[in-house]
Amino acid sequence: MEFLAPDKNYAERIRASFQKQGVMNTIGGKLLKVEPGEVQIEFPFSDIVAQQHGFVHPGILTTVVDSACGYAASTLMPADSEVLSVEYKVNFLSPAHGSEFLAVGKVFKPGRTIMVCSGEVLAKNGSEYKTVALMQATMIAIFNNG
Amino acid sequence: MEFLAPDKNYAERIRASFQKQGVMNTIGGKLLKVEPGEVQIEFPFSDIVAQQHGFVHPGILTTVVDSACGYAASTLMPADSEVLSVEYKVNFLSPAHGSEFLAVGKVFKPGRTIMVCSGEVLAKNGSEYKTVALMQATMIAIFNNG
Amino acid sequence: MEFLAPDKNYAERIRASFQKQGVMNTIGGKLLKVEPGEVQIEFPFSDIVAQQHGFVHPGILTTVVDSACGYAASTLMPADSEVLSVEYKVNFLSPAHGSEFLAVGKVFKPGRTIMVCSGEVLAKNGSEYKTVALMQATMIAIFNNG
Amino acid sequence: MEFLAPDKNYAERIRASFQKQGVMNTIGGKLLKVEPGEVQIEFPFSDIVAQQHGFVHPGILTTVVDSACGYAASTLMPADSEVLSVEYKVNFLSPAHGSEFLAVGKVFKPGRTIMVCSGEVLAKNGSEYKTVALMQATMIAIFNNG
Repeated sequence: MEFLAPDKNYAERIRASFQKQGVMNTIGGKLLKVEPGEVQIEFPFSDIVAQQHGFVHPGILTTVVDSACGYAASTLMPADSEVLSVEYKVNFLSPAHGSEFLAVGKVFKPGRTIMVCSGEVLAKNGSEYKTVALMQATMIAIFNNG
Repeated sequence: MEFLAPDKNYAERIRASFQKQGVMNTIGGKLLKVEPGEVQIEFPFSDIVAQQHGFVHPGILTTVVDSACGYAASTLMPADSEVLSVEYKVNFLSPAHGSEFLAVGKVFKPGRTIMVCSGEVLAKNGSEYKTVALMQATMIAIFNNG
Repeated sequence: MEFLAPDKNYAERIRASFQKQGVMNTIGGKLLKVEPGEVQIEFPFSDIVAQQHGFVHPGILTTVVDSACGYAASTLMPADSEVLSVEYKVNFLSPAHGSEFLAVGKVFKPGRTIMVCSGEVLAKNGSEYKTVALMQATMIAIFNNG
Repeated sequence: MEFLAPDKNYAERIRASFQKQGVMNTIGGKLLKVEPGEVQIEFPFSDIVAQQHGFVHPGILTTVVDSACGYAASTLMPADSEVLSVEYKVNFLSPAHGSEFLAVGKVFKPGRTIMVCSGEVLAKNGSEYKTVALMQATMIAIFNNG
């Protein structure tokens, strides 16, 4: 699907918001792709995000793909809006074992206030990527002047 | 519901596993109640876990309540087992604003391998608690000798 | 939790809406309890709703508990509103074997437009009830004059 | 993704199971595509499946896409197995208005016992198809000889 961003400064707006996420600083998240309807975030493995077996904690995979989906929704929103997570569901497909992780969030169904997004987290091992988490999320836009 | 723990050392086993979770160290998680079918984890607010508005990131709420649910399931499992998250769904009910957060995970339906859990995260403001996240999760037990 | 219904004719409004659901007529659904924040619907087992093993199809359990949750949300809404299902998640706990089924829908978190509901379906065998499905749902209110 | 069916009679096995679903007879479901990792089911609009506004009830969309996902998982399973729904989550994207509905179920991640599936329901209006529901589901295989 091809999407158009109503706010031509969407990428700057989202990059500024990302900078303010303390948690992304904590885990070393980097904002890569920011395009209408799709956002990608990368983070490295470290013990900071590990569960008891040395894999990434499911909740950290969730954190990053939730942000990717939320910002993907935000690319399609006007400048004076905020996007919040109403809810999401995540399946964990394989142990989150890798040196780096790539979260991809995409808008599946845009809407005026409610947006449905699909997300994945891929684990990188050498040159191979493997999907380790699959998200289906509902986002809502809040309008600051409304 | 009243549950019986088949492993009499369940609490020690779970406390030892919790110690190994790097992410719980990162966010300052403390394991409180560990009883058959129920586990509680507490963590303080800090910028380490914040999203762009200074609230706790939904994914961090998820991280902690996922661990609470997973350990709740683990209380009902034999000593030589591991519990993994198959999937979960979380609704966010209010902005995660508070000084401390309490995640409560409970087994809703035990099973030999598949367990369904219910979880909540409560935000503490002064002496008041308010539910900010609601989880429904599916856990699976893996048997090390199987 | 105690809820107040803003529309004093909520029960009549919901009973009238229920009468218009062709699918409830198909499966023999009966509206039992209609109180602020909670609705119960009952239906009998029949081959009309069965899957390949003679149990009730998961989607039919879902149909009935979705209506119970939607109407539970509707009890807390003004007269000129409609409640729609944004999304739901359902776990299936046991084979849906029974002579009758009772779906219970409750509002977990009310809101001006978004409401989070919890639902269960219980299977009746003789005088025993057993939970066979657990739902967590997000409902939205649409205002006809808005 | 390309999948291989371990049971060469998978299509006959699934068609025979589908015939036994009383609920598919009730709603006029027809099994179309049955290929490794993907199954499609079609059904017509009728008052039998309607909610109070004359659209298809969300639970009926769910019923059909759940069966499509379950059978998609079943194509990748041996002959002596049954596939059950552990849980699913469905988002509703648009009112389910159409003359016919097509449910598409696909295996997203195969596994020895647990499979993750993605499903959609498309509403047909004239020659146009529009996605009205999006499912993410967890299926489990039960082995009759195990």
